[in-house]
Amino acid sequence: MINMKVTREKSAENRRALIHAASKLFRQHGVDGVGVADIGKEAGLTHGALYAQFPSKDALAAEALADAQLRSHQRMIASAKDGEPAVGEHLDSYLSKRHRDNVATGCAIAASGSEIARQDKSVSRSLAEGFERTVRALETAVQPSAVTATSRERALVIAVAEIGALIVARGLAKSNPQLSDEVLAASRRVLGEIGGER
Amino acid sequence: MINMKVTREKSAENRRALIHAASKLFRQHGVDGVGVADIGKEAGLTHGALYAQFPSKDALAAEALADAQLRSHQRMIASAKDGEPAVGEHLDSYLSKRHRDNVATGCAIAASGSEIARQDKSVSRSLAEGFERTVRALETAVQPSAVTATSRERALVIAVAEIGALIVARGLAKSNPQLSDEVLAASRRVLGEIGGER
Repeated sequence: MINMKVTREKSAENRRALIHAASKLFRQHGVDGVGVADIGKEAGLTHGALYAQFPSKDALAAEALADAQLRSHQRMIASAKDGEPAVGEHLDSYLSKRHRDNVATGCAIAASGSEIARQDKSVSRSLAEGFERTVRALETAVQPSAVTATSRERALVIAVAEIGALIVARGLAKSNPQLSDEVLAASRRVLGEIGGER
Repeated sequence: MINMKVTREKSAENRRALIHAASKLFRQHGVDGVGVADIGKEAGLTHGALYAQFPSKDALAAEALADAQLRSHQRMIASAKDGEPAVGEHLDSYLSKRHRDNVATGCAIAASGSEIARQDKSVSRSLAEGFERTVRALETAVQPSAVTATSRERALVIAVAEIGALIVARGLAKSNPQLSDEVLAASRRVLGEIGGER
């Protein structure tokens, strides 16, 4: 009985280590740029231990994406001063140079966005769950604004626009850091306005 | 002399074939998902012919991205009814289900966006040139709107937001086509408003 418990605990620990390693490596190098062997190595586990937990790379990618999105969401909630996240606070953090320059610990959708459509349905399902959760939080947070679209529409656009802004700002950073900064600043201002900031 | 001319023409033809093949394959499978051998094969050329034109995969990626962005820009100009692209017309086309469902012939930034930051500086330079050109065209096209940000800021945000919308809509399509459609429709409406549509 004790051995079985140890095994179960060890198995859960391996699972967490694999998700953590996959989540970090996928963000740094892309889903297609990382092999399962790299993930096992980063987690300090054998190929066999990996396949005992995840039948495929897609299954691991789906869980890593879900985990990273949940952590981002929890950070968004935790950073809110009174428990209710404000759009401005969220944008300050999401569209910061720090977030742009730290892909391995940042938003997983921005890090792997254009690769997600090429993965299987389980990864798409993870994206849908995490994305819907973020949109609902933003929907609650947006205030009336000059834009006449509904709160839901504005929340959806803030969510996709901040992802696009981060992706483009990162792509520009190596050759044109000034334009990269300009993208972040313009997005911070316009998305704040859409969210009801004055 | 005749032979040299033929060789020069053949060389230019090979170059075009390689750029065309790379541009299509990178959009379909991602920059990391395609090897130089695949590109040579798609173009019907040998490895040697490829390296005679492009010293590295990054050099080819930079040129393929530049070419795809120029084509997108030319389509945007050509589709404008009176030669001046209108924001609404551009958004109708960019945020269409057809564009979402045809990655190989669509916007190269949306297709490879999150991978660009992982390529070398020449790819970033291509992105910056093409992106700046699109932003300038949008800047001329935007009309006064309820959003108080400048035309330049609004143009920057329309450009990054439509990219983010397309990336997320593609990622969602396999598991939640309804949410994917909703992202496109909300983005069409809100970005139109930012661009001065009433």
